[in-house]
Amino acid sequence: MFAPVYLDHNATTPLHPEVLEAMLPYLREQYGNASSRHEYGRAARRAVDEARQQVAAATGAHATEVVFTSGGSESNNLFLKGAAASLRPGLLAVSAVEHPCIARPAEQLARQGWEVATLAVDGEGRVEQGAYAELLARRPALVSVMLANNETGVLQDVVALAQAARPTGAWFHSDAVQVLGKLELDFRALNGAGVHALSVSSHKIGGPKGAAALVLDKRVELQPLIAGGGQERNLRSGTENVPAIVGFGAACALAARNVKENRRRLADLRQQLEAGLHHQGARIFGAGAERLPNTSYFAFPGVDGETLVGYLDRAGFAVASGAACSSANPEPSRVLMAMGVAPELARGAVRVSLGATSTAAQIEEFLGVLKGTLERLTSLTAMAS
Amino acid sequence: MFAPVYLDHNATTPLHPEVLEAMLPYLREQYGNASSRHEYGRAARRAVDEARQQVAAATGAHATEVVFTSGGSESNNLFLKGAAASLRPGLLAVSAVEHPCIARPAEQLARQGWEVATLAVDGEGRVEQGAYAELLARRPALVSVMLANNETGVLQDVVALAQAARPTGAWFHSDAVQVLGKLELDFRALNGAGVHALSVSSHKIGGPKGAAALVLDKRVELQPLIAGGGQERNLRSGTENVPAIVGFGAACALAARNVKENRRRLADLRQQLEAGLHHQGARIFGAGAERLPNTSYFAFPGVDGETLVGYLDRAGFAVASGAACSSANPEPSRVLMAMGVAPELARGAVRVSLGATSTAAQIEEFLGVLKGTLERLTSLTAMAS
Ligand SMILES: Cc1ncc(COP(=O)(O)O)c(C=O)c1O
Ligand SMILES: Cc1ncc(COP(=O)(O)O)c(C=O)c1O
Repeated sequence: MFAPVYLDHNATTPLHPEVLEAMLPYLREQYGNASSRHEYGRAARRAVDEARQQVAAATGAHATEVVFTSGGSESNNLFLKGAAASLRPGLLAVSAVEHPCIARPAEQLARQGWEVATLAVDGEGRVEQGAYAELLARRPALVSVMLANNETGVLQDVVALAQAARPTGAWFHSDAVQVLGKLELDFRALNGAGVHALSVSSHKIGGPKGAAALVLDKRVELQPLIAGGGQERNLRSGTENVPAIVGFGAACALAARNVKENRRRLADLRQQLEAGLHHQGARIFGAGAERLPNTSYFAFPGVDGETLVGYLDRAGFAVASGAACSSANPEPSRVLMAMGVAPELARGAVRVSLGATSTAAQIEEFLGVLKGTLERLTSLTAMAS
Repeated sequence: MFAPVYLDHNATTPLHPEVLEAMLPYLREQYGNASSRHEYGRAARRAVDEARQQVAAATGAHATEVVFTSGGSESNNLFLKGAAASLRPGLLAVSAVEHPCIARPAEQLARQGWEVATLAVDGEGRVEQGAYAELLARRPALVSVMLANNETGVLQDVVALAQAARPTGAWFHSDAVQVLGKLELDFRALNGAGVHALSVSSHKIGGPKGAAALVLDKRVELQPLIAGGGQERNLRSGTENVPAIVGFGAACALAARNVKENRRRLADLRQQLEAGLHHQGARIFGAGAERLPNTSYFAFPGVDGETLVGYLDRAGFAVASGAACSSANPEPSRVLMAMGVAPELARGAVRVSLGATSTAAQIEEFLGVLKGTLERLTSLTAMAS
C-alpha cells in the first residue's frame, strides 16, 4: 500500500492504535444508548463518565465543566451563539486570525443585531495591544481569542488578554483546539485569569473524529444550539456518540501523559525542519512569536503554494497549503492578510504540521524532496519567462 | 460475558458487523481530513461521496440533497432553526407527539418571536384533521410532523398533511428517524407531495452513532447551525466524521437491501409479542393506528412501568420505560398525555422495540419472564394493600 508521509497533523491526526482499542468494545458489544435505563445503557453511561474525567484531567478542568459536542466547530458555535442568545445584543470581539468557525458565527450574529469588532494583529499574528485596549473601553459582552492559530501556530497571550477583559464583565472564550496535546492546558489557571470557556477537539490529538468539548465555567449561561432530550446538562442534546467520546477520553489520557516529552520532541523536529527551510530560502510566518512546537508555515518567494503542495503530494508528502478546513477557498490566507503579508507571498504559503508519527528521517527526506521540487519549479518558471 | 436480550432498538441499535468492517480502514490508515488536498484527503473525500450516494439511495433522494450532520437531534434543530433564521418570525406548527429535539427548538423559537402551534392528536396519536385544517387557515411558515413516533411507532399520514399544507407555501419537514430501515422511504415521492425535508439517523439502523442527515429540498434556504469552514454546501461546517459517515452509508446500503424482508420479519415477531401481551392483559397504545412493524408500547393497569423495566433488566431483558432520550425525566410520557391516556395508565408504559438481532426465541423467553414478573409484582402489591 502507498502510504505518503503525513505532515498535516493540524488538519487531523491518525487515530492512535490504543485509542481504537479503547473504542472497539463500544463499536461491538457495548452499543447502548447512555440514556437507557438498562444494563447496556448503564455501561454506556459509565464509559461517558470516565471519558469526561479524562478530558477534564487533560484540560485542567472539573468533569462537570466538560460539555461534549461533535467537533471543534460545534464547540465554537455553541459558545458564541449560545452565549449571545442569553444576552441582549451588544459588542462581540474576535481576533482577525480566528478559525472560520468563530469568524462565520460572528458574522451571523452581526446580522442579528450584534456589533462585531475584529481585533487587529501585528506582523507576527498577535492581537495588537492598542486595538485591544480601545475595544475593552467599549465594554464588549463577548470576547473570543484563540490560544494558538491553526495556520501559523502563533500563540496569543490569552492570560493577559483575559485579565485585561475582566473588569468589563465580558464572557471570554478561547479556541484551544490546536493547543490540546501540544502544550499543557490548565483551565483552572486560565479560569482564574478570566477565561470562561475553552474549545478542544478529539481528532486533533490522536482521537476519533466526532467528539470534542466545550470546557465551560458554570456561571456562563448558554442556550443550547442542539436542544432536545436534555443530554449534557441540557447544553447539547442528542444520543451521546459513546465510542467517539470514549476515544476522546483515551486520547486525552495519552496526551496528558505524553505532553511534556511530546513538546520537546516536536520542537526538536521542527528545529531540524526550519533549519533546512531557511537554508533553502523560505520565509517563515510568525517566526518572531511564540508558537506551537509542531507548526511551520512558510513560503518561497515566487513559488505558488498550491502548486508546491501538489508536487509534494505526488512525491509522497502530505502537507497543507492553507487551513485544511477551508482549502476549498482559493483566496490567499485571511490569517496572513491580517498579518500584513503581501498577497503574492501569501499565495506561496505551505504548512507543515508535525505529530506523533513524525520522525527525523521523514523530515530529512522531506527537505531533500523539497529541494529537488523547488529546483524543478524554478527552472520551469525560468523557461516560461 | 453477560449479554442481556436487547429489545430497545428504537433507542439505538447494535452496529452491524459489516458496517464496522466498512469503517475500520477509516479508523486506521485512511485518517485524512476530507478537505485536505493530498492523497489522504482525497481518499476521505471519495469515501464521503460514496456514503452520500448510499444515503441518497436508501432515502429516495439525490446525493446533492443529503446534508450530513452528527445526529438526528442536530438534523431536526438544523431544519427548524435554520429555516426560521431565513424567514421573518411567523407561525410554526409541530405535532404534540414530536420528539423533544423538535419540541424544545420550537420552544426556543417561541422565545424569539415565533408563534408556535401544537397540533393535537387523536387517541391513537394521529394529528387531528380538524385542528390541522384550522392551523393551515392561519398560514404557517413552517410545519414539522414526524413520519413515525419513537414511543408508539404510530405513523402519521405525512403525504396527506404535506399536500394539504402546500397551498399555504409553508416549508414542511418530517422527522423520519424511526422510519429509515423499517419502512421504505422515498424522498422523491414525499417531495412531490410537498415534503421539503426529512431527518434520518445512522445509529437507529445498525450504523454508528455520530452520523445522520437532513435530506433537503434545495429550494429551502437554511442558515447553518454550525458555521465555519463551509463543509456540506455551507449548511454544516466542521471536519467531516469520515468513519461514521462511511458507516452510515454502509448501514443505508444494508437497510435498502433488506427493508422489505425486514419489515415482514419484524411484523411477524411483533405479532407473536403482542398476542402474548394481550393474553397477559396488556393495553397496547396506538394499536388502532398504522404503526412501525417493530414497536410495541404497552402498559398493565396497576403496574408501574419503571418498576417493571427494572425487574426485566435484572432478569436479562433490555426494554424502555419511555423514550430513551428523555428517560431521565420521571413525568408520564408527553406522547401518551397528548393521546389522552390517563396518567395512571401512562405511568405503566413499557416499550419493546425489535430489530435486526431479535428472534422468536427471545420473544418467547421474554413473554415467559414477563409473566413471572407480573405475578410477583401483583402479589407484592396485594401484600402491601
Ligand atoms: C483552531 C481551530 N479551531 C476549530 C477547528 C474546528 O474543528 P473541527 O473541524 O474539528 O470542527 C479547527 C480545525 O481545523 C481549528 O484548527
Ligand atoms: C423520532 C426521533 N427523532 C429524533 C431522534 C434524535 O436522534 P439522536 O438522539 O440520535 O440525536 C430520535 C432518537 O431517539 C427519535 O426517535
